This record gives sequence, C-alpha cells and structure tokens, in this order.
Amino acid sequence: MEMGNGTEEHTVKAVGWAARDPSGHLSPFTFSRRATGELDVTFKVLYCGICHSDLHYIKNEWSNTIYPALPGHEIVGEVTEVGSKVNKFKVGDKVGVGCIVGSCHSCPNCNNHLENYCPNRILTFGSRYYDGTLNHGGYSDLMVVQEHFAVRIPDALPLDSAAPLLCAGITVYSPLRYYGLDKPGLHVGVVGLGGLGHMAVKFAKAFGVKVTVVSTSPAKKEDAISGLGAHSFILSTDAEQMQAAVGTMDGIIDTVSASHPLPPLISLLKSHGKLVMVGDPPKPLELPVFPLLLGRKMVAGSAIGGMKETQEMIDFAAKEGVRADVEVIPMDYVNTAMQRVSKSDVKYRFVIDIGNTFNDSLISSE
Amino acid sequence: MEMGNGTEEHTVKAVGWAARDPSGHLSPFTFSRRATGELDVTFKVLYCGICHSDLHYIKNEWSNTIYPALPGHEIVGEVTEVGSKVNKFKVGDKVGVGCIVGSCHSCPNCNNHLENYCPNRILTFGSRYYDGTLNHGGYSDLMVVQEHFAVRIPDALPLDSAAPLLCAGITVYSPLRYYGLDKPGLHVGVVGLGGLGHMAVKFAKAFGVKVTVVSTSPAKKEDAISGLGAHSFILSTDAEQMQAAVGTMDGIIDTVSASHPLPPLISLLKSHGKLVMVGDPPKPLELPVFPLLLGRKMVAGSAIGGMKETQEMIDFAAKEGVRADVEVIPMDYVNTAMQRVSKSDVKYRFVIDIGNTFNDSLISSE
Repeated sequence: MEMGNGTEEHTVKAVGWAARDPSGHLSPFTFSRRATGELDVTFKVLYCGICHSDLHYIKNEWSNTIYPALPGHEIVGEVTEVGSKVNKFKVGDKVGVGCIVGSCHSCPNCNNHLENYCPNRILTFGSRYYDGTLNHGGYSDLMVVQEHFAVRIPDALPLDSAAPLLCAGITVYSPLRYYGLDKPGLHVGVVGLGGLGHMAVKFAKAFGVKVTVVSTSPAKKEDAISGLGAHSFILSTDAEQMQAAVGTMDGIIDTVSASHPLPPLISLLKSHGKLVMVGDPPKPLELPVFPLLLGRKMVAGSAIGGMKETQEMIDFAAKEGVRADVEVIPMDYVNTAMQRVSKSDVKYRFVIDIGNTFNDSLISSE
Repeated sequence: MEMGNGTEEHTVKAVGWAARDPSGHLSPFTFSRRATGELDVTFKVLYCGICHSDLHYIKNEWSNTIYPALPGHEIVGEVTEVGSKVNKFKVGDKVGVGCIVGSCHSCPNCNNHLENYCPNRILTFGSRYYDGTLNHGGYSDLMVVQEHFAVRIPDALPLDSAAPLLCAGITVYSPLRYYGLDKPGLHVGVVGLGGLGHMAVKFAKAFGVKVTVVSTSPAKKEDAISGLGAHSFILSTDAEQMQAAVGTMDGIIDTVSASHPLPPLISLLKSHGKLVMVGDPPKPLELPVFPLLLGRKMVAGSAIGGMKETQEMIDFAAKEGVRADVEVIPMDYVNTAMQRVSKSDVKYRFVIDIGNTFNDSLISSE
C-alpha cells in the first residue's frame, strides 16, 4: 500500500486544521476519512482539547512529524453513523476519543485491558492505521474510530470540560489508581500545575487524598489553594519550604516535562513512597540510588490508560463532579492558543469549540 | 555521656579483630560489651560472614568510620545468657544477628515490622547504641543484643552457611517478596553474581521463578548455570544477547554497587516490570524517563529487611534448603580474605569460623 499523506486515500471528505511545516502554523486542510466500517463509529467532532504534545508534534520537536500534521487527541463528539457490528453506541450518543485508536488485541497488555501499553498501539494522529493510511487528529469536523477506542460521555459531564479528560485526565488518574495513591488519608504531591497537574489535584481530592502542589512558580500558590482546593503549596525553589515537607508524602505525580532534579522530590517521600513520572523530560535525569534504598522508594512511569480504565475514569469524573478547567476558544484562535500554550499561559486547558466555530473558521481563513 | 570508642565503657571483656586506621588492616582488639540486660541475649559468636560493606567500613570509604573499627553483621552464635524478661530464647539456642540492633519501636515503620526503615535504626557496628556507646560487630568472641533483634536459627540450617542470610540473604529476599517477584512462572533477572546475586538466584529459584543472571563477566556463565542452576545467562557486554532478551523480564534484582548504565536493564523488563536496586553505586545514575512511561516500569530500592521478615526468610531457607555458598576461613585469614573480597575472588561469601579459630588467632597474632 502506498504510504500517502491522508489527502486522497478514503472516500469521505473531511476538513481540519493542519500544519504544513515545522513553523507549526495551522490552517484549514482538506483530507479524507474512511467510510464507517462494521466496527466503526463516525462522529461529528464538537470539542477538542489542546495538549502540549500537539504543539511538540506540529513543530516536529520529536523529529517524527509527518506533514500535513493534524493534531488533537482529546476529542468529544456526537455519533452520526455506526457500523453493522457496533454494539456500544447508537446515532446521537456522545463519545470521546483519546490518544489511541488501535492496538493488536492479542498481546498480554491488550488481553489485560492495557491497550495503551500494547507494542503495536496506534496513536490517534501522526501514526498509520491498520490499513497503512495516515491518522489525523481531532482538529477536524469528523472522526471515524473503532467502537473499542471510543468511550461513552455520560450526560452529567459537560462536553467541553470532558475533552481534556481523554488525555490529561487519564494520564494522572491511571497512576493514582495503579500505584495505590487513591486512598483517603494518603498525602500526594503534584509537581507542576498545568493541564495534567490540575487534573491530578482534582482526581486526588476526589479520592479523599490530601494534596500538596509543588511548583517553581509563586503565582501558582493562589491558583492551587484557592482555585483548585489543594491542601497546601510548596515553592520548590524555597529550601525551607522543601525541608519542612521532607518525608511527608506517600506519592508524587510529577507532570513536568522539562529537565528537573529528582533528589529533592525523592526526599519529600515517606518510606515506601512512589515518585511517578508522567511528563517526559528530553534528557536523562540524575538518579541517586542510596535514597531509594534507604526508604524503599521508587521512581516509576505511567502513560495514559487502557480503554476500560478510561471509561471508568470518565464515569468517575461524571459521578464525582471532576471537571477540567478549560478556556473554550474558536477554531481560528488555535495559532494564538498555541503561542500561549508554549508560555503555559492557560488555566488549564484550551478546548476548541469545533461544533460551533469550525465552519466559520473555514470561511474566515480560506 | 562521653562518646567513647568502646574500649572501657562496659563491664564484660570482649575480644575482636578491628582496624585502627584507613589501611583497613585488622588485628586483635580488646574492648567491652555490656552485661546482659533484662531484654538482652548474650551469645558466643560461632560464625560471621564478610560483607563487602565491612571492607568499605574498615577503609573509611564512606567517610564515616569510627576507629577502632570492628565490623561484621552476618553473625551466628549460641546463647550463653538471657535477661530476665527474655521470652524467645534460652541458653543453648542458636541465634543470628544481622545489620541492625536497635530502632525506635514507635514510628510507623517500627509498628509495621520494618525496623530496617526506622529513621532511628541502630546499625550493628559503627553506630552508637541507645546509651551512646559505640557498637562493635561480629568479628569478635561474644555479642549482646536485645532479643527483638536476634532471630532463631532452626536446627535444619548449617550455621556457617546460615550466616550470610542475615545480610546478603534478607537483602534480596525482601525485595523479591515486596515487589511481587516471588510467583512461579515469573522471570527475574539477577544483575551481578556475588554474595547478594547468588542468594537472589537461590531464593528466586526456591520461589519457582525463572532466573537469568546478567553479568559483565563471561566466566560467571558456568557458575550461574551449572553451579547455581540459573535458567539462563546474559553477558551484558554482548549486544546481541541483550537484544534477544529485551522485554522478557518481570523484574530485576540489581546487586551491582559500581556505576553502571540503567537503560539496558530497563529495556530487559516487560511492561510493568520492576528494576530493584540493592547495591549502592557511589554516584547518581542516568535515568531516561521515556522508557519508564512507555512500559509503566519502575526503578526502586530496597535495604535489608525487618526482624519479622528476617525470621521468615531464615525459616523459609531452612525449609526449602536455601544455603549460601561459603568459603569458611579461620579468623587470622581475614586480611587476606579482605584483599580477595576487593577482587570479588570468592564464591560467594567468606564466613569466619570464629567458634573454632578465634582463640588460636589471638595467640598467633598478638
């Protein structure tokens, strides 16, 4: 099969906003989606969150971008067509799609509802589908996805603030669960207060966990405490504040993708504490081993979640009132939004209102 | 209280072999032990293992040595006197003492049978006891210890090969248990085949785990497979052998205290695999975060074990036939043995036959 760029491979016309080169500038782009297969649901995209990884991708910062690059993996919409073998969804249902749209369905991870760790998982954009065609993300008017990789959005959940749950939400929910940091009475630190960090605060609080935000930015203190209800705040550049918190945390969710020192964070942990990385610093970090031995501590990683757990997370959020804090923007604001994302100037997630602004954006921009 | 060097503080005369300076040369040394307190057992030392940390200590390689330095924390002996409130032991019982002889008994770790992680744990040598006096180790004719920090050595266990269980044994047994690497059908790698590594192979095999030894030394292959019954061997300097084992291990017990790269070991792990460090490399190691995220892997630490678990380990070893491979030496061979330890020239642990050779050693050396 020819490895095309997604413009002519399929029968259904679609429109999105894509970058053509590493400038990362996004503009309207006409391409194609496959017709609804027997296991597929097709849906009209209503909202799509902007994840920092979208920005990395459109600027080719990971050196793996295929242009035209059409990002977006926090996607919420309404089903318009279902395949003949689809059981979970019907036309009109609200659905969400996150970071993955395919996996092998036969490896141990797939058999264990951990499609996110399948060695052959297929990412929502910038990867190739089973048929070899290029996947495009959610900055577009419609999506087609196998029902297995769509989750149901309960009525109780506002669609705009649901979108970031599909990546930012599950990325922090899954490790809080897996590493046992979801028990009332525990104390969890959240390092970095951005899209992921603010969701970590909210889920940890919903679990009944005491939450301390750790940040290099003094301005985040009020956001953390008054805005998000974190129990305390530590300015990580303040040695006294850090010293006062040594040995107090059962776990830490570290959302920071920039290089940063691990030892001060390890020292915040109690014995048997867990430092869980969900950000991806570009270079290896220095790990002193002795502090791990002395307190039987661990440094661990986690990446999004499986489809079963993603549905559980969505249902939990609906029931417990966990919502992303979002700034809803029109489609044609996306390039400005990207500049603001690069400066962390958003509380805490941009969500593109694709349902209401996408068509206008095509007229105004083309 | 005066912080003495242990020579005149107590009423009971004792003799040991101690180093006087960072040459690390050991020679006979007369000092004192406390009289048997109401919670104490006093015992005649019969065997004491030589741990690599003894060598670090006598040479002041950790810059914390107090001279005269009398090491030894793999100690087995026969009870000669018990205090009025001692319940567990009577005269004639065989007992063992490992790395710790005291703790606070009130912190969460102590309350959870994890005295080894008590912030105020008291080490068997080179530390100060509750009363401020200097502790001396097991290269000596007698020991006095609170019964809480002594374990019972079952009759089934030969005393010489039991000694290394008190440090090397529990150091690898505890993480195999805690990190869930003790289930039949799992595959565990053991990095480094010395005192700790060979015990890790034996305990893992006793748990029904498939064991692969990973070493930089081709000569260890036969030792690992024919000698210890490991299921396979990987020469870590051979890229092909390493590549063939990528993604095959549920966990790794890394016993290496020298600096060494972690990424190749992390790559040997399956998803959700655990790299457990029990050695203490002198400098921080480089930790790439992405491989941890991608497979939800962890790098963790562990240090010896609590008293309850140490007794469990001893009882397990007695029942399952787990024995350290030892080279039993007379007391006056200890300086030669230390030179050989520094070259890893021992399979796999020197054990000093104190019961039979100590008095002779005083005559021949003084």
